[in-house]
Amino acid sequence: MANYRFFVSYEGTRYDGWQRQKNTDKTVQGKMEAVLGRLFEQPVQLQGSGRTDAGVHARAQVANFHMAAGSAVKAGRYEAAQIEEYLNRYLPEDICVYGLEETDERFHSRLSAVGKTYSYRIDTRTQKPVFIRRFVWHRPGKLDVSAMKRAAGYLTGTHDFASFCGNPHMKKSTVRTVDRVEIREEDGLITLSFHGNGFLQNMVRILVGTLAEVGEGRCEPGRIPTILAAADRSLAGPMAPAQGLCLESVDYDPPYDPSQNIRPR
Amino acid sequence: MANYRFFVSYEGTRYDGWQRQKNTDKTVQGKMEAVLGRLFEQPVQLQGSGRTDAGVHARAQVANFHMAAGSAVKAGRYEAAQIEEYLNRYLPEDICVYGLEETDERFHSRLSAVGKTYSYRIDTRTQKPVFIRRFVWHRPGKLDVSAMKRAAGYLTGTHDFASFCGNPHMKKSTVRTVDRVEIREEDGLITLSFHGNGFLQNMVRILVGTLAEVGEGRCEPGRIPTILAAADRSLAGPMAPAQGLCLESVDYDPPYDPSQNIRPR
Repeated sequence: MANYRFFVSYEGTRYDGWQRQKNTDKTVQGKMEAVLGRLFEQPVQLQGSGRTDAGVHARAQVANFHMAAGSAVKAGRYEAAQIEEYLNRYLPEDICVYGLEETDERFHSRLSAVGKTYSYRIDTRTQKPVFIRRFVWHRPGKLDVSAMKRAAGYLTGTHDFASFCGNPHMKKSTVRTVDRVEIREEDGLITLSFHGNGFLQNMVRILVGTLAEVGEGRCEPGRIPTILAAADRSLAGPMAPAQGLCLESVDYDPPYDPSQNIRPR
Repeated sequence: MANYRFFVSYEGTRYDGWQRQKNTDKTVQGKMEAVLGRLFEQPVQLQGSGRTDAGVHARAQVANFHMAAGSAVKAGRYEAAQIEEYLNRYLPEDICVYGLEETDERFHSRLSAVGKTYSYRIDTRTQKPVFIRRFVWHRPGKLDVSAMKRAAGYLTGTHDFASFCGNPHMKKSTVRTVDRVEIREEDGLITLSFHGNGFLQNMVRILVGTLAEVGEGRCEPGRIPTILAAADRSLAGPMAPAQGLCLESVDYDPPYDPSQNIRPR
């Protein structure tokens, strides 16, 4: 079995998220599987590093699929570069594949992932952001970034993030390690960057919604430990809108490094 | 008569250009006049600094309109800030008005303009530019930027730009002064910036199409003077696509300075 992995960059605006769904053909995974299915003349099942919500973007999502090299179909006849070229030719202009390569048969985009980086952008200026509106949460009004940074300090570490989980029926562990939350402001544009070993459903968006309430002065940074300890979704802030969020990269060991490839912009 | 002027920023993707047209309601001017007409309860005629083609963007287009201050209608009852707020509330999200103010009655966006700056972006990398695709000409393959700069040197100055005019029936003078053409490359993204006292129809796009041919090595920089002297459109290169072009700013004397206001992004 050949195992192909690749990076995929997409603007999530038009999509109902990453994951294939029965009731919509507007998912990134669905679009890609359809193109791969035409290339290989058989169903191809893609494995992504994780789902992204409807409207969320990705700069370097990672996905892989297996293909029987000796099957009667076309598999094995294609070089990695040809598969990448075919995908990019037939995928819409808001999805781009790059760095496609054959890898270890045991590599699994989701199970092999050891970390992820998400970014979130808040535009706090009054003006309507006409050019970047699909990539920011436009929320006019100054936010207290230093208070947000103090709150972020309480979030860093290994915690039960149940209060920040969008799935109320989550059965598995809601403990995650977030080892880095960076917040920087430039010219009214606040960029939050989260790195951790994994994130719960809607977690980054709820973290951002909560940090925005801190920035507004409606929640003290010192309340974060209480919110975490309660394991109660109702204590955290609202979920920030999807379009500000971007899956920036996924970590593997050994690394599959997007910087080796040139990331789409 | 009160004379209101303002900056307007728009993403041109969805529009059939700036200028109001009879056969389409998808023009920027048309959208704005419709909103102003509702506010003032009478037809409002907007004057822009110039047209932009379908699909072309603007960061700081300038427009103005007159309104009888003493008329029986609502004119004069509105403060500039209220008009601006009303426009931004009812205009679509890809059009933003800012810096609206009452000005000298004789100010005319087009006739008072003394210079303009346009930018054009070419993405030369292989990857599909998923995030910035609406704002670049994606033209994979390296371009010889130093040759393009040499060619740009020949373009600078006062010339008859008839060879670079998209209107074959142009009756007025095709002489223009282009005093600055800057070309810089960063990470495969080439940004061309043109400053001049005025530009002919499609002129910047034809200049860019010609400079791209120079960058490809299909046209020697030294041919530019010949192309200019011939005053023959067929000697210049093709017209570059609209979406890479952006009207950055318009100069007036005394200045109406967008840097005094914060430009939308």
